[in-house]
Amino acid sequence: MESLNQNDKEYLLDQIRDVKDFPKPGIVFKDITTLLNNQKAFAFLMDHLHRRYKELEIDFVAGIDSRGFIFGAALADRLNKGFVPIRKAGKLPYTTISQKYALEYGFDEVEIHIDAFKGDKEEPKVLLIDDLIATGGTAVAAAKLINQAGAKCVEACMILNLSFLDGKKELEKITSVYSLLDVK
Amino acid sequence: MESLNQNDKEYLLDQIRDVKDFPKPGIVFKDITTLLNNQKAFAFLMDHLHRRYKELEIDFVAGIDSRGFIFGAALADRLNKGFVPIRKAGKLPYTTISQKYALEYGFDEVEIHIDAFKGDKEEPKVLLIDDLIATGGTAVAAAKLINQAGAKCVEACMILNLSFLDGKKELEKITSVYSLLDVK
Repeated sequence: MESLNQNDKEYLLDQIRDVKDFPKPGIVFKDITTLLNNQKAFAFLMDHLHRRYKELEIDFVAGIDSRGFIFGAALADRLNKGFVPIRKAGKLPYTTISQKYALEYGFDEVEIHIDAFKGDKEEPKVLLIDDLIATGGTAVAAAKLINQAGAKCVEACMILNLSFLDGKKELEKITSVYSLLDVK
Repeated sequence: MESLNQNDKEYLLDQIRDVKDFPKPGIVFKDITTLLNNQKAFAFLMDHLHRRYKELEIDFVAGIDSRGFIFGAALADRLNKGFVPIRKAGKLPYTTISQKYALEYGFDEVEIHIDAFKGDKEEPKVLLIDDLIATGGTAVAAAKLINQAGAKCVEACMILNLSFLDGKKELEKITSVYSLLDVK
């Protein structure tokens, strides 16, 4: 499947803004809104994702609350697949299954509707997408939820990978992972 | 511009699940996840939005946190426009402008990046989109933010309109409003 060459990666990284000390002092936040509101850059990214994933057999695209909704919904639409939101606890209205995961202090929780992948197939194939993987807690929990809901997470696509953290390695224990842009 | 006929409306409404007593007793929540994960219904909706808005001169699509991201990003991608997220307070990393709006008890606040509509045009045209309009507080605040950020909200597109509330009338004081599905 297609992946980005070095020039393409540099072009896309140039569209992402670094915001210092957000959400707290010492953290440099990768702001993708400057990529999204740039029509050429957004289309460039979506064209790449489309070319890569039209070759993969999938039935659904699942996106993680809330920036994963942006790439996930646009990609599901391009690929003519259904879109499934994975959300923070308490946001989905129907019966859910949930996964907790550890944070630096305390824990967080994500949920999926129990019938999110209802359809004709016995074990539908799902592409998981989010904008960023850091320590991997959310993505690992989301991939587990997909499998618990009776589907199979065949790949997780992360636009940005903070490669100085080990999230990608953790996620690779569960599913194939494609990260477009590695941030060192 | 195209709008839906009665059969199309009934088809789409049939794809949306009513969940009783969510988020609190007495409320019937309109669950659009059953529309989104149904590939045919999602494509039907996006095809309609695409046909309608390819006729409207716009420069950006803005979506409201977080279900507005789903329709907004997919539509921006189809129309080859940039996508701008409007978010709950504290979520956007760069300099923002904000609007407060009253809730039943207390208030809420939405934000937009101050440079969200940066580009060649002096007053870019923006289509605002969200999944639902109820009392209209969020949508009115979002439309005001677009105008405050130096752009012009030329239409607000709401998939569902709870027409027993008066949100649509309030929003129409600021911008043209297109609601696809009216719930009485």
